[in-house]
Amino acid sequence: MKVGNEHFRTIWWDKDEPGVVKVIDQRWLPHRFVVEELRTVDDVAVAISDMHVRGAGLIGATAAFGMYLAMLEAQTKGVESILIAADQLKDSRPTAVNLEWAVHRQLDHIEPLTNIEDKISAALEMALIVADEDAESCQNIGLHGVSLIQEISQKKNGDVVNVLTHCNAGWLAFVDYGSATAPIYEAFNQGVPIHVWVDETRPRNQGARLTAWELGEHGVPHTVISDNTGGHLMQHGLVDLVITGTDRTTYTGDVANKVGTYLKALAAYDNNVPFYVALPSSSFDWEMRDGIKEIPIEKRGGEEVRYIQGLIDGEVKKVLLTPEHSQAANYAFDVTPSRLVTGLITERGICQANEKSILALFPEKQRQGD
Amino acid sequence: MKVGNEHFRTIWWDKDEPGVVKVIDQRWLPHRFVVEELRTVDDVAVAISDMHVRGAGLIGATAAFGMYLAMLEAQTKGVESILIAADQLKDSRPTAVNLEWAVHRQLDHIEPLTNIEDKISAALEMALIVADEDAESCQNIGLHGVSLIQEISQKKNGDVVNVLTHCNAGWLAFVDYGSATAPIYEAFNQGVPIHVWVDETRPRNQGARLTAWELGEHGVPHTVISDNTGGHLMQHGLVDLVITGTDRTTYTGDVANKVGTYLKALAAYDNNVPFYVALPSSSFDWEMRDGIKEIPIEKRGGEEVRYIQGLIDGEVKKVLLTPEHSQAANYAFDVTPSRLVTGLITERGICQANEKSILALFPEKQRQGD
Repeated sequence: MKVGNEHFRTIWWDKDEPGVVKVIDQRWLPHRFVVEELRTVDDVAVAISDMHVRGAGLIGATAAFGMYLAMLEAQTKGVESILIAADQLKDSRPTAVNLEWAVHRQLDHIEPLTNIEDKISAALEMALIVADEDAESCQNIGLHGVSLIQEISQKKNGDVVNVLTHCNAGWLAFVDYGSATAPIYEAFNQGVPIHVWVDETRPRNQGARLTAWELGEHGVPHTVISDNTGGHLMQHGLVDLVITGTDRTTYTGDVANKVGTYLKALAAYDNNVPFYVALPSSSFDWEMRDGIKEIPIEKRGGEEVRYIQGLIDGEVKKVLLTPEHSQAANYAFDVTPSRLVTGLITERGICQANEKSILALFPEKQRQGD
Repeated sequence: MKVGNEHFRTIWWDKDEPGVVKVIDQRWLPHRFVVEELRTVDDVAVAISDMHVRGAGLIGATAAFGMYLAMLEAQTKGVESILIAADQLKDSRPTAVNLEWAVHRQLDHIEPLTNIEDKISAALEMALIVADEDAESCQNIGLHGVSLIQEISQKKNGDVVNVLTHCNAGWLAFVDYGSATAPIYEAFNQGVPIHVWVDETRPRNQGARLTAWELGEHGVPHTVISDNTGGHLMQHGLVDLVITGTDRTTYTGDVANKVGTYLKALAAYDNNVPFYVALPSSSFDWEMRDGIKEIPIEKRGGEEVRYIQGLIDGEVKKVLLTPEHSQAANYAFDVTPSRLVTGLITERGICQANEKSILALFPEKQRQGD
């Protein structure tokens, strides 16, 4: 999508610098636009765990490129380093299923190849495919999801459609377009009057920092709100539709997403506001039935709650919010049970958040004997 | 309650300086402890509207003292200035019913008096009564509410009881003890093992700044969490009880409180966690039936969302969180419908959140003909 007037993806590779993968270092947004060069598996693991890159799709694509760098490193470290690198990448964050999915896709792809040069070119090829597929999936999510917004717009006789979103499931969370934002961008590009309520999404403020920034760069009207506000807005008819992303969705329709998503789903349900989750199928976990019991929820450092980063005197700095001696807990995700989810917007179309409807859209995932 | 080893109330008056009302200027907590001297009605109105003081009970007590300062000013401005001052104070914040209640209590009290000296001493007397009653009500809320915590403690065989609270309904929101915190302090003082999840309460972070600070000063174990976290904790059995305060509660049991309270009530309901609201009866609105339709919700400046204040290099400063050109909306309260409220903890005892149960506890409020 656009940054200023230039088109960017969140991750890219250039044949002139074959040992380098470039990403937008999202820690400095919206205040600074920084491009980071990743040259080693360590670089990639740190970029994922310390959230220079984040978001289900982008984590997957970054891990895929990480496996390409692992092949380059295997030239000197030996092929036994490949599985160690794979584990290191898989361990860099626990909740997003795309990470594991991308690493295993690479391992399966290079496994038949004996020659290291072949492994290198195969891994590069696959990383580029993973990135392109991610962007394409998101574009398709937009084309399917826009119908929901068009329908509301018609019902409102062309009045502004108010969409609420939580966290950043925008193009910054993927390679391009985004999942939750793809229908929004598509509607906006079609000229449908639209306005987005952006949950700031504490503690890391991905909404206030990233979603607001990318909507602003694209010109989409939006308003940042505290995470506490959505329920009040829904009670007063100020939200027509909620769309969020997901880091992992069970094949039964339970949705793990940034902590606080569950609270918005409850409010949407209580106020008859449709609550949709947008995802490329790479975010499905085809093994998990019970999201609340089974999906691992990352617990991050309390410092992310106690301190917050912002712009002061032209510099990006952190300030302490809590008393010096108060502890803080930081659960990064929660799980929204399928009963609260109106539907899932995927690259193949929209389905209900239940096993039958999901498998009807992805019949190749039907298990034998099920 | 204690600050260090010294006992403080949030507002006090000293006969050696009869024209001065002292308050803790809460804008600087937890990083600095600042006492402010209020000398005029303007001072009081600014202290309320700019939230040097905040919280239902404390706003009421401050307004009561403001009316005393209005009597002093009437000596030079004339008695017609009294009603102007009353309006100015009532307009300083819209949601807390205590403000109106305290001002009218003063007006009723001084109305029969013709002599300005009599009005002055009557207003002082009433301000001191309002403050004392507020502290006493909160103390009684603690004595009644502690039974809920004791019961859970027994059911858990003495394991730690986890209470979640939103915003600050602590002693800093009243004259002393607090409403939501009064049962917590009482349980802690009785030696019941207790731990408090403190919602940080964006945008103004009254939880992270004030509740965490006062619990810490009193030695109560607590953990600050982002406002997004409570739902996840409840899903996983990590919350035994929610207690919040309220700025205005209808006689039918609808509860206006800091924005985001409604979301926690929904999560508590969805997970069978008891959700109690603690209030002195001064926070009841005996005229209002439908909280969502009738209670005015204050909309504050978007700058409170876009910027946040914290400690950096030993100074309390503000940092910008959002893109420079993104707008923000700031609804300060929401209304939790009575169906989500397990019960109300008042100075007279615990009742259900419905008209019948509330009026059984406050029979003098029963209307004739109802």
